[in-house]
Amino acid sequence: MNQQIIDKITKQDYVSIANRIESSLKEHIVKSNVNGLIFGLSGGIDSAVIANICARVSKEKSLALIMPDSKISPKEETDDALHIVESLKLDYKMIDINLIYPKYLEFVETDQRALGNLRARIRANILYYYANVKNFLVVGSSDKSEFLIGYFTKFGDGSADILPIVSLYKTQVRGLARMLGIKESIITKKSSPNLWHGHVAEDEIGASYEEVDSVLYCIVDKNMTITEAKQITNIDQNKVDRIYQLYEKSQHKRMMPVNIRTSLKT
Amino acid sequence: MNQQIIDKITKQDYVSIANRIESSLKEHIVKSNVNGLIFGLSGGIDSAVIANICARVSKEKSLALIMPDSKISPKEETDDALHIVESLKLDYKMIDINLIYPKYLEFVETDQRALGNLRARIRANILYYYANVKNFLVVGSSDKSEFLIGYFTKFGDGSADILPIVSLYKTQVRGLARMLGIKESIITKKSSPNLWHGHVAEDEIGASYEEVDSVLYCIVDKNMTITEAKQITNIDQNKVDRIYQLYEKSQHKRMMPVNIRTSLKT
Repeated sequence: MNQQIIDKITKQDYVSIANRIESSLKEHIVKSNVNGLIFGLSGGIDSAVIANICARVSKEKSLALIMPDSKISPKEETDDALHIVESLKLDYKMIDINLIYPKYLEFVETDQRALGNLRARIRANILYYYANVKNFLVVGSSDKSEFLIGYFTKFGDGSADILPIVSLYKTQVRGLARMLGIKESIITKKSSPNLWHGHVAEDEIGASYEEVDSVLYCIVDKNMTITEAKQITNIDQNKVDRIYQLYEKSQHKRMMPVNIRTSLKT
Repeated sequence: MNQQIIDKITKQDYVSIANRIESSLKEHIVKSNVNGLIFGLSGGIDSAVIANICARVSKEKSLALIMPDSKISPKEETDDALHIVESLKLDYKMIDINLIYPKYLEFVETDQRALGNLRARIRANILYYYANVKNFLVVGSSDKSEFLIGYFTKFGDGSADILPIVSLYKTQVRGLARMLGIKESIITKKSSPNLWHGHVAEDEIGASYEEVDSVLYCIVDKNMTITEAKQITNIDQNKVDRIYQLYEKSQHKRMMPVNIRTSLKT
């Protein structure tokens, strides 16, 4: 379904896209006067792609932070992250955030959703800590699908200086990952932010990424009405409504804080 | 000096400004479908003004978080914060971040600057934690002077959903604070983010807020060249250069992460 709807990208196109991202990152290193790139590596497809591209930019100037919560993150996910840094010969640090985050719980009441987001924010703290120490740019791994439906933690994994794959839908990131030679099991496993046990992205979103991408493509890229998107995609109407609502309600996550204008002259 | 250069605001104007901020906050509560407002209260002038305005919006729907680092924050500052919530009869929680942040130090190397920023980011974590639990809007206390020279921690105190006083220079926030009846000692004490011992804002910036405001007003509001700003303000040229550089170099703190465009059609 999806492949007929969103723009078709050939393998050669993915080569051009990877080159474009690589050269943009190089330009931004110079422009921002930083010493290198730092990123969080979960072992999921998005951060695997980021790791690959950072390695192309410079292995010496890239640092991966692997920050599992040892009580939550599946061992296979962290093994995938380690496989990635080893195969790319990238410098990395591993910090178990489970040794940090329970400290917060001594002072705040328990709330599963808030705790999930706290995990993502602690990771952002550590990334920015090392970015400060090393004068590195924080490279975010948001893809277009998750960015547009707000499927990220505001000021958590949403915190970054630059977003190299935010113009690519998840289904396109898979194509890019294949072109880059990323292990097939990393590409095909179920996506998860692992903010709690058994957390599966598509279950929480309530639609597959193929469906999400098709609907967003119609609404955002092609400026269609919801009715038109329903007709063209032939996706369950409730799912289309839900995807549209996620997009609408997450606007605040894609913009700077609202500025209240106090000027007396308007 | 400054008073001749930036727009003169009368006491009556400050009344209108406070009303405008109050009604904007009320509108945003409805529009964002949240239950109330949450903000960090240090005891400094900016957060004192925010506390006053939130109290005008709704005492019942406002929550102040007082988050000193007991090893760093001066006791008088926290006393001022307590004085504010007591005099406004605002609900508050007090959390000593010194009980949280040393946990990070077990895993990261020591760096004073990075540690300072980490303190601000831990505060943001806690604000957003409670914002999640209560479905509250996070109200930031950035003023225009500090916002424009980037005198805040990216994804730390810079993290907020709405910025009510970001259109007012620090010297104007003082006028608003006087109109609101805030204690004179809070208005006149030296500003400090208290990210480390003896941290004084004007010392770190290298200029007084009167100077910062005059230079920014010329460059940002009046679109003057640096040479013109030097002539008109008659402020030490090195200071003008420094303020301009702070403004220029902090652009990335006032925008969303850079999006790398990968579209093949340009």
